[in-house]
Amino acid sequence: MTQAKVVLTDHPWPDLSVERAIFAAANVELISGPIEAQSVEVIDALIAQHKAQAIMCCWASVSERAIRSCPELRIVARLGVGLDNIDVATATACGAWVTNVPDYCVEEVSDHAIAMCLSHWRGINAFDREAKLGRWNPASANLKRARNMTVGVIGYGRIGQATARKLTQGFGATVLAYSPSLLKLHREGDELLPKVCAASLANIQLRADAIVLHLPLTPMSRYLINDVFLGALRRKPILINVSRGGLIDNEALMRALDAGAISGAALDVIEGEPVPLMALMSRRDVIVTPHIAFSSDASLAELRRRCSEEVVRVLRGEAPLYPCNSPRV
Amino acid sequence: MTQAKVVLTDHPWPDLSVERAIFAAANVELISGPIEAQSVEVIDALIAQHKAQAIMCCWASVSERAIRSCPELRIVARLGVGLDNIDVATATACGAWVTNVPDYCVEEVSDHAIAMCLSHWRGINAFDREAKLGRWNPASANLKRARNMTVGVIGYGRIGQATARKLTQGFGATVLAYSPSLLKLHREGDELLPKVCAASLANIQLRADAIVLHLPLTPMSRYLINDVFLGALRRKPILINVSRGGLIDNEALMRALDAGAISGAALDVIEGEPVPLMALMSRRDVIVTPHIAFSSDASLAELRRRCSEEVVRVLRGEAPLYPCNSPRV
Repeated sequence: MTQAKVVLTDHPWPDLSVERAIFAAANVELISGPIEAQSVEVIDALIAQHKAQAIMCCWASVSERAIRSCPELRIVARLGVGLDNIDVATATACGAWVTNVPDYCVEEVSDHAIAMCLSHWRGINAFDREAKLGRWNPASANLKRARNMTVGVIGYGRIGQATARKLTQGFGATVLAYSPSLLKLHREGDELLPKVCAASLANIQLRADAIVLHLPLTPMSRYLINDVFLGALRRKPILINVSRGGLIDNEALMRALDAGAISGAALDVIEGEPVPLMALMSRRDVIVTPHIAFSSDASLAELRRRCSEEVVRVLRGEAPLYPCNSPRV
Repeated sequence: MTQAKVVLTDHPWPDLSVERAIFAAANVELISGPIEAQSVEVIDALIAQHKAQAIMCCWASVSERAIRSCPELRIVARLGVGLDNIDVATATACGAWVTNVPDYCVEEVSDHAIAMCLSHWRGINAFDREAKLGRWNPASANLKRARNMTVGVIGYGRIGQATARKLTQGFGATVLAYSPSLLKLHREGDELLPKVCAASLANIQLRADAIVLHLPLTPMSRYLINDVFLGALRRKPILINVSRGGLIDNEALMRALDAGAISGAALDVIEGEPVPLMALMSRRDVIVTPHIAFSSDASLAELRRRCSEEVVRVLRGEAPLYPCNSPRV
């Protein structure tokens, strides 16, 4: 049998020591794309050239064409949680597993969401910027006590639950949790945990001082945050997105900021990244980080190890630990 | 009896509606200084001019001379917690109460310390600054998982305990708590709360990934953070000061940042404020806020109401609720 190949489409970390060690031990050849994700055409060409048995991707798109160009493809392994950049249907039709690493960054993303929320409530970014210009103006502070705040958490999977737990158990804040599946199991107002209640979107719009997005990007959730949603907010919340840029209509967001319907936004993801709309990113009422909420020394080590091991597992003929589809294999 | 007077030396909030309402109802005349604290000489003159029965101060110094210039002085009421700007000994000798409002901002200061800590661990300030220059560079992230961090909390009063509780119950971090009085009651290593242990300064220097200062400024604690303290740090912690600027030797701090002995500093208070050393404040590895950790809509309302009520209480001849000295009255 010839040596199996894995194409790594992109890797937003500088070295590949973790991946190389695992694939070398399993006698799998690693073909690596660049650090930064390239265009669909470039990725398609890279994958078609090598006709690999496995594809690993972080941000790069894995298209129908790329998948169909690999007749022996066994697995498309996402270095991450979301699958919006992978044509899962085609992979399934072609008999290839699609996998992710569902829980490697639960701590990081929930930490990041709370860091952004606190930074807004406590004026950290805004006042640090002033200080760096030599200004020291405490009388202009308009800050919040976290304990008195109500936070709408939209999306209540592993990460949403971690954010809710930290906000309530750590800070004594109140959480209103929404997800479509949650409201099939619970009635609005049901207490899920102390100070965490199931809520409708309408209730969140009415009562939240902050709204955190923790839901996947799907055709259903695209532009969930649009003019209609933003127009129904009542308490000028801060809007925090640590999930996917496509959840928010950027133009509607800027209109809401201009109109004072929200008091600010904190965005780790922005539609258009890695070159987001500068008019949005440069605003003083918007805090931006470059899609790093998932990242820490601990989470990256775990992500890279577990994703590489998943590829090796499938290439050995075993079932994956984290299947996201049900191909006939 | 003539109408009693209270001199308010400074008030870092724009209006005085809360104070005016309480003093008007009690038939006390309110004489107000400016928003920003003035020099000792200006404050001395203001107080001497009015010979008030009560002095309320936020940041302004209340000197021996000021106190001795008011023969009928009954109370010096601090709008805050720390007493380092009041000559308490002279007030005591003159038979005047010194009071503070010890617990109005426990939530705020602990929230602020954690906001600064998370902002550093999650790169919020640094990456937002990059984004505002149009840069989107996730591969440069070097972030932390809060759960894996060990935080040294120096000063373990109401606020230190709140920070410790939030870090452990909220984020699952580990806390090493130090205060001189704590080590009289407990041995090093004693568990005070789940994941919170009593520790020596030496142990904090060895193990902490972050160090938060929550102790009062006294002759004993001045320049606690000096070359010797900083030279003994082993894990390049972030240093967070939300107490008093004088706890840190600024020149030693800059040497430690230059040498990489600490990974950054987050300072809500800086010796030299309101005009701190620009060379310190403008550094990219330093996060600065202008002495606002105590502030929120909730805490300010509480502070102003409770401090004004304390003045009225003493002027009525009752004992204060929060005495900080024992004058013969």
